[in-house]
Amino acid sequence: MKRNMIFLLLFFACIQVFSQIKTVQERLGYPKETKLLIIHGDDVGVAHSENEATFKAMQSGMVNSGSIMIPCPWLSEVADYCKKNPKTDLGLHLTLTSEWKFYKWGSVTEASKVPGLLNADGFLYSSVDSLVRSAKPSEAEEEMRNQVKRSLHFGIDPTHFDTHMGSAFASLEFLKAYIKIGKEFNVPVLLSRQLEAFTPFRFNLDSLITPSDVLVDKIITANPEDFKKGMPQYYRTVLKTLEPGLNCLLIHLAYDNDEMKAVTVDHPDWGSGWRQQDFNFFTSSECRELLKQNNIKLITWREIRDKLYRTGK
Amino acid sequence: MKRNMIFLLLFFACIQVFSQIKTVQERLGYPKETKLLIIHGDDVGVAHSENEATFKAMQSGMVNSGSIMIPCPWLSEVADYCKKNPKTDLGLHLTLTSEWKFYKWGSVTEASKVPGLLNADGFLYSSVDSLVRSAKPSEAEEEMRNQVKRSLHFGIDPTHFDTHMGSAFASLEFLKAYIKIGKEFNVPVLLSRQLEAFTPFRFNLDSLITPSDVLVDKIITANPEDFKKGMPQYYRTVLKTLEPGLNCLLIHLAYDNDEMKAVTVDHPDWGSGWRQQDFNFFTSSECRELLKQNNIKLITWREIRDKLYRTGK
Repeated sequence: MKRNMIFLLLFFACIQVFSQIKTVQERLGYPKETKLLIIHGDDVGVAHSENEATFKAMQSGMVNSGSIMIPCPWLSEVADYCKKNPKTDLGLHLTLTSEWKFYKWGSVTEASKVPGLLNADGFLYSSVDSLVRSAKPSEAEEEMRNQVKRSLHFGIDPTHFDTHMGSAFASLEFLKAYIKIGKEFNVPVLLSRQLEAFTPFRFNLDSLITPSDVLVDKIITANPEDFKKGMPQYYRTVLKTLEPGLNCLLIHLAYDNDEMKAVTVDHPDWGSGWRQQDFNFFTSSECRELLKQNNIKLITWREIRDKLYRTGK
Repeated sequence: MKRNMIFLLLFFACIQVFSQIKTVQERLGYPKETKLLIIHGDDVGVAHSENEATFKAMQSGMVNSGSIMIPCPWLSEVADYCKKNPKTDLGLHLTLTSEWKFYKWGSVTEASKVPGLLNADGFLYSSVDSLVRSAKPSEAEEEMRNQVKRSLHFGIDPTHFDTHMGSAFASLEFLKAYIKIGKEFNVPVLLSRQLEAFTPFRFNLDSLITPSDVLVDKIITANPEDFKKGMPQYYRTVLKTLEPGLNCLLIHLAYDNDEMKAVTVDHPDWGSGWRQQDFNFFTSSECRELLKQNNIKLITWREIRDKLYRTGK
């Protein structure tokens, strides 16, 4: 009888513990079955074409979030937009690479302080592979921190951090630095358990974060195969099969115009045509309807930051 | 009688001296009455639109020279053009300012070495006035030298130097540094006696140069009044009234497209419309005809450099 009582107590204790492990959607005040979605434009600031298309898609389309590349030449245009639209949801697309053929940028940190980040021409490396081979984690950390500081100098209050070309996911040390910078500035950083399977190194995400950190249940982004098969079809499937939880759809918005064709020359993947297709779909009435029909609730990083990171605790 | 002989000898000696003061056109091997003209596209490298229009106008129009802004984001595109067109006439548009509203660049020298060149945002100043108030001449000199070094690193062999927004003409010390850099790299720098009247300081050009240095007889460039009255009319008059000597016509070529409209936003003077008009005129058959009808001989800085600066003496 006594033993049965102990089992019963243990049973109720377990129920108690499990019931406290809330889903992100519940922590944010939504029912467990809610399909939350961030429709997120990457690469803001890289070019005027990207800025114009992203801002248009945020204002008249379904895009509700984006992130800024601080080292890029069109930063001032983004800062002006943020000033005029202070509630916009823009974070930082922490940038350690400069991937295009003829249009380049360097670090925001002085070259002599981060020599490992820069190639022989003084630009950030084109590829993540070269970056990781050459850069010390401390250099990546310093550059990421300086990009945040520079955004603040420009009056930009970033709602979240993520990572251009996934460079922060390229080594365990880079990943640790990325998470550290998020903590320093008390903003959510894009993280998901998916990373445990996709990074080139083995790690346990729980060992790097605290239970209060927000994880995205699913990061969704088109790959070159999806582009070949047709982007509208890919995005339709994404929206129709979205599951409850916090989902983040990473897209790239720009016009297929002279500037963007030149920026992305010789690089059809993630090129200007791809970006125009993203713009077309996420400003279409079809997209709006699909979100409604599939009961998808849009959420911003700003809401996540302000509800779960900056509660005044 | 003896006195008359002395006068006669002096007279012939004077004739001898004056006859040795050759015009630039004579030093270059052309008759004294030759109207030499460099049709020069400024601001190469500033934007893709500027690059594309300038290269097109050099290849199929009457533009035969240009100069590159080394700190700008599209430098790699220019370096690629120079590699593919090694005989092209491109010099350096030594750049100490970053004048546009939302599209900015900094120095090529590390910020900590040239703090006086940079504004609070880390960009070169928008105006020459701010530059001159803030920068030490030694900083301007170091930045100009590093721009030349950077061009050489990129495989660009500059045919001449000139100065973006005339910033090298803004103080006597800047002017001295500009001339000094030309000597260091043994290339002609854009100079004219006109400067003595137009600079905000008084000086005697002869005190800064040697007799072997080339002076342009006339630097010609449209101002906002000319733009208001109509650029084709202005350029027609320039070509019809050109005088014998070495003339340098400074123009700015770009397309009036989305990119260039955004670069030059809120700045109609030297804006995208202005640059499109320059492109239109200097790729027109009318321009080609006017050059012929008025016996204008086009000459490049490369020819001047190679005949008068790099003779192997």
